[in-house]
Amino acid sequence: MIETPYLLFLGDAPDQLAAKVAVGIKDWRPENAVGQYRMDGCKADLGLTDMTLTEAKEAGAKTLVIGVANRGGVISQEWKKVLVMALEEGFDLASGLHNLLRDEPDLVAVAEATGRKLHDVRVPEVEYPIANGIKRKGKRCLAVGTDCSVGKMYTAMAMDAEMRKRGMKSTFRATGQTGILITGDGVPLDAVIADFMAGSVEWLTPDNDDDHWDLIEGQGSLFHVSYSGVTMALIHGGQPDALILSHEPTREHMRGLPTYTLPTLENLRDTALALAKVANPDCQVVGVSVNTQHMSEEDAIAYLAKVEADMGLPATDPFRFGPGKLVDALAAL
Amino acid sequence: MIETPYLLFLGDAPDQLAAKVAVGIKDWRPENAVGQYRMDGCKADLGLTDMTLTEAKEAGAKTLVIGVANRGGVISQEWKKVLVMALEEGFDLASGLHNLLRDEPDLVAVAEATGRKLHDVRVPEVEYPIANGIKRKGKRCLAVGTDCSVGKMYTAMAMDAEMRKRGMKSTFRATGQTGILITGDGVPLDAVIADFMAGSVEWLTPDNDDDHWDLIEGQGSLFHVSYSGVTMALIHGGQPDALILSHEPTREHMRGLPTYTLPTLENLRDTALALAKVANPDCQVVGVSVNTQHMSEEDAIAYLAKVEADMGLPATDPFRFGPGKLVDALAAL
Repeated sequence: MIETPYLLFLGDAPDQLAAKVAVGIKDWRPENAVGQYRMDGCKADLGLTDMTLTEAKEAGAKTLVIGVANRGGVISQEWKKVLVMALEEGFDLASGLHNLLRDEPDLVAVAEATGRKLHDVRVPEVEYPIANGIKRKGKRCLAVGTDCSVGKMYTAMAMDAEMRKRGMKSTFRATGQTGILITGDGVPLDAVIADFMAGSVEWLTPDNDDDHWDLIEGQGSLFHVSYSGVTMALIHGGQPDALILSHEPTREHMRGLPTYTLPTLENLRDTALALAKVANPDCQVVGVSVNTQHMSEEDAIAYLAKVEADMGLPATDPFRFGPGKLVDALAAL
Repeated sequence: MIETPYLLFLGDAPDQLAAKVAVGIKDWRPENAVGQYRMDGCKADLGLTDMTLTEAKEAGAKTLVIGVANRGGVISQEWKKVLVMALEEGFDLASGLHNLLRDEPDLVAVAEATGRKLHDVRVPEVEYPIANGIKRKGKRCLAVGTDCSVGKMYTAMAMDAEMRKRGMKSTFRATGQTGILITGDGVPLDAVIADFMAGSVEWLTPDNDDDHWDLIEGQGSLFHVSYSGVTMALIHGGQPDALILSHEPTREHMRGLPTYTLPTLENLRDTALALAKVANPDCQVVGVSVNTQHMSEEDAIAYLAKVEADMGLPATDPFRFGPGKLVDALAAL
């Protein structure tokens, strides 16, 4: 669908977290990431070679992927300059932004003139049904977070990779732009019309073999007031058999909501499980995935041990220590 | 915002039920209903003056509201004749039909030529923001249901009317097409893009006087897997100070989901309140609204008494016995 490899556009990202799309691509498809393109003031850095458009073209890059969130809900004129030049240099563009490339007349005109493609991976291309709640065959796992951007996608990606390595049947099911950019398939859930959200998740995770696991990419948080409805639709549309709790222990408040504190893992467990049992009475919470990137290794190990003792559940940082414990928990179900 | 007052178009309604939108307007905003327009064979009658377009125009009507369901999923040629004439006479048109007025080229052409507006209230006309969770001034009340279609809109409408009668400051905030047509304003929440649901509810219920109540129209149910995400967005976007529990005791399963049973009122109370406290820690459950239409008066009275005893909350059927108890509960907060 999208021509590889990519040049990853980081724009003027205010911090590393704003570039999580690019980080995801680099982590899961490093062979597709030729380099990074950073503008003045960019505070994100993937550790890839900084390249001009010409250098990236010479290195074989086919598509400029916008790997960063935009500010203020507009594609700025500074960005436009780069995007137009990229089209002129022969790159396709791929984006998961709310603002569609196809809604920008200048980009459309230049893409037409140069014969390049504009990929808006956020736009639903399917007429999803309304959810019917009918129990489906096969098994499903969903990560739910104490907050947004705590590592839910990473957890599902890492578990999927580990399960395939072990010869288990599994499929990562993308529900956001990063996952779709990486896998080339999925539901752009945050762009789906309200009435069809849960139905789109049912559509994404159809009947399957009894021993097959869908690893559904989580979104938002039941405790994040901006996006909790999306999380709710994932829980009820996904009918998960297994929930993983995802958490980032050093965060001082909910992302983007300075006056909102994070819930405890116990609160997340009880809230999410009760709601999940509406759609699947057999649902269980099977483990905890902790994002320890801002902790020393010693602190991370101590924190995980405490979580395991407090919660009576296996706990790991799948990035730092691997997802093995979480996969063991699924295998034991 | 739809210009009032209205001429209510009943078309060739096969019965009174088909005209329930018009009935709602006449019941709840009689001051918005100048008269009714009935075609040959119309079996509905609101008891309003039958008017020609010219008579209604002279009586001050600004908008022709389609207050009736259409048959066979099309806007018939007989309807079209009236709608085109109405535009020519200077009326705007407003509709909650699935078939959009804006998808009819003849209506679009005439509306453009005459400078009139076509309002399709199922389609959002505003670019809603992402919810910011910032605490707003004024007070908000939301009805949450054990299921869909249990009387949440009626409850809010009846409370709003009673509060105005008592001289309290209140505003009904519509979140569905019927409510929007009745009041002329609101958010068609089930058609909003997922990421903006909670933001659209914040937009709908802005800062207000400290003693002003928004009566927010509820949608769906936290326990209805098809629509629970919409309900979640109402709870977090609405920041309710007061929750009303809505229930229909004779229903044997969740609407449209034959294998799903309804939750208890206790389960609804605990689930909804815990989630509401994320956005507003001071939120309280203040009363129960029971739809007793399928019960005898004796059974209804006994049921309400039992609910009051079990829940320790005032309980009423606002249609049968008036919303007074629920308004008392808000006034006491």
